[in-house]
Amino acid sequence: MRIAITGVTGSIGTQTLEVLEFLKTKNFDFKLVGISAGSNVKKMIEIIKKWKPEYAALENAELEEFNETKVLTGKDSTIEMLEKSKPDFVLVATGGAIGIKHTLKAIEVSKRIGLANKESIVCGGKMLLEYAKKNNTEIIPVDSEHSALFQLKLGDEKPSKIIITASGGALRDWPLDKLNEVSVKDVLNHPVWSMGKRITVDSATMVNKGLEVIEAYHLFDLKKENIDVLINRNSHIHAIVGYPDGVMKFHYGIPNMTIPIAYSITYPKRIYEYHYPDLTLESIKFEKVDYNRYPALKLAFDILGDQKLQIVYNAADEVAVQLFLEGKIKYTEIYKLIYQAINKFINKNIKINNFSDIILVDNNTKNFVKGMVL
Amino acid sequence: MRIAITGVTGSIGTQTLEVLEFLKTKNFDFKLVGISAGSNVKKMIEIIKKWKPEYAALENAELEEFNETKVLTGKDSTIEMLEKSKPDFVLVATGGAIGIKHTLKAIEVSKRIGLANKESIVCGGKMLLEYAKKNNTEIIPVDSEHSALFQLKLGDEKPSKIIITASGGALRDWPLDKLNEVSVKDVLNHPVWSMGKRITVDSATMVNKGLEVIEAYHLFDLKKENIDVLINRNSHIHAIVGYPDGVMKFHYGIPNMTIPIAYSITYPKRIYEYHYPDLTLESIKFEKVDYNRYPALKLAFDILGDQKLQIVYNAADEVAVQLFLEGKIKYTEIYKLIYQAINKFINKNIKINNFSDIILVDNNTKNFVKGMVL
Repeated sequence: MRIAITGVTGSIGTQTLEVLEFLKTKNFDFKLVGISAGSNVKKMIEIIKKWKPEYAALENAELEEFNETKVLTGKDSTIEMLEKSKPDFVLVATGGAIGIKHTLKAIEVSKRIGLANKESIVCGGKMLLEYAKKNNTEIIPVDSEHSALFQLKLGDEKPSKIIITASGGALRDWPLDKLNEVSVKDVLNHPVWSMGKRITVDSATMVNKGLEVIEAYHLFDLKKENIDVLINRNSHIHAIVGYPDGVMKFHYGIPNMTIPIAYSITYPKRIYEYHYPDLTLESIKFEKVDYNRYPALKLAFDILGDQKLQIVYNAADEVAVQLFLEGKIKYTEIYKLIYQAINKFINKNIKINNFSDIILVDNNTKNFVKGMVL
Repeated sequence: MRIAITGVTGSIGTQTLEVLEFLKTKNFDFKLVGISAGSNVKKMIEIIKKWKPEYAALENAELEEFNETKVLTGKDSTIEMLEKSKPDFVLVATGGAIGIKHTLKAIEVSKRIGLANKESIVCGGKMLLEYAKKNNTEIIPVDSEHSALFQLKLGDEKPSKIIITASGGALRDWPLDKLNEVSVKDVLNHPVWSMGKRITVDSATMVNKGLEVIEAYHLFDLKKENIDVLINRNSHIHAIVGYPDGVMKFHYGIPNMTIPIAYSITYPKRIYEYHYPDLTLESIKFEKVDYNRYPALKLAFDILGDQKLQIVYNAADEVAVQLFLEGKIKYTEIYKLIYQAINKFINKNIKINNFSDIILVDNNTKNFVKGMVL
């Protein structure tokens, strides 16, 4: 299997390399043929030296030459890497809306994608999934919740209900009326997962869960009323599927991204190894979501299936979170800005036909949100 | 689909009729072509009048004539019913070792069996499963734990671990040193399931779970070290499968036998309907099994895969439970009698080649246990 990784220097990219390291010990037949990143020169060089991929692309910085690896640079170098390295499998771990472009190219050149770029489904929606179908390219979600749903659905009927779980984020027990006082430090103190800054804030607001609901809606072709979110504080249950006969299947595991990453590579086999959690150590509890605490999640349900508004929701949050991290807005204003952006774009007559249209709405939203604050 | 039910007047048989009643409302295409029972004349007449099957067999009592149903009687009448009614699907709900004979005939005449008769796998073991394979007859387990395992395994790799859950039975919180004082009434007060008397006692001793471990071992072709039992007090989690990558899948549902019965009939579809449990109402806890409280379960693990001893284990328990219910032995003597029976037969050179050999060991064990007490 010829493997390429986009966004290789990020958290998911690094963990993918860890997984590949393990798979080597199991004689899993693969070659890392292509990698790409944005601007992390130091880490890129380390990876090239160690893995000697056929192609390495760095979009926003220069890179020295290597004997065994062809170096590509510039803003289209990831695309070039994907075309030239001819991978069978691409792990798309690029962050942000630019990742959609990488997913689209990966759909064209490979047979299977391990998809860790949220924007691809949130912004690309049905359009992107139909493109994958047309190209006969499998999309295996890497996000732990969607990987769990993918695994639970195997071999059974289409579920009549799916439940995504949420940890509740860092502010789950804060008094509601004190939420406008929380500091950046309070929010970044996530109880379960160790992640990037945006996703940790998104976890507190549950925008993260909103994006996941949107993804699940598209990936599994569900109706809005068949999707639910419950809080599972220790995040051991990642997702649940339910059937009309009252049967539910839970996906339980230790919160560690290497597991869904490995699954996306070796599916339908499970070659990766990880220890079992001890089920007797703690009990499993579910709580209903209080939409007063997490209004952004409610908003995600409201816009489900509207591709334009999904793009707005994601872009507005990206900017709002950045503004919050920079100390320019209060925590509670994150939701307010997203809400205002949705309201701004809801009646605009914009058709989304291709990647450029997505980027246009993405940019327009970002500029609108910035304009609201500056 | 032409459906036959053996043991139709018992608890599983009656619930199967409930399921069929429901499936009618969903336009599921079936006909109840054959039924059989032991000696419950009154219930048999009711069922015949209502369902008008083509054949009705009563083994141990006489039955009047009916216009639309051909009545068969005598000890081989179930076999005759199965041969003549030509079912596509047989729900084998016969209780006891005689059910093995019904399963063997059902394997010959039908395409699929919903198997609720424990003895068929416990005593028939590999022999019976190979016979089903040879006849190209599917066996779908109806026991809630095995149905759960069957459903969890769909579409995925062979699990490296399975966990069967146990409620712990009526005596799960009794002081260990008072167990020899418990009365029949104490034992019959089961916390979760409403079942027959033997199975309620077996639930307290966990012989029931021992039999299920034996069944799972054969049905899913597992190794002893890959099977575990955990206590889940409210019995909402029926079973768990685990994979080498640390992923576990749980089967969660309301403890109601109509659900696995319906599944065995409509598989791979799920046509039956039942409400979802509210996951936020109670937490899910697992506890390790204390083998000092449940030595009979430990014994089941010890004899796993030894067909002769599996027959002895089941037969000895059947008699011991009867003796306990009749007030002839103490609760703690149930295990002691099973243990003594195992010890008696462990070195006997008995080959099990067919149904008669099974019945012989079954009878010899029962006589041995009775002889120990009388």
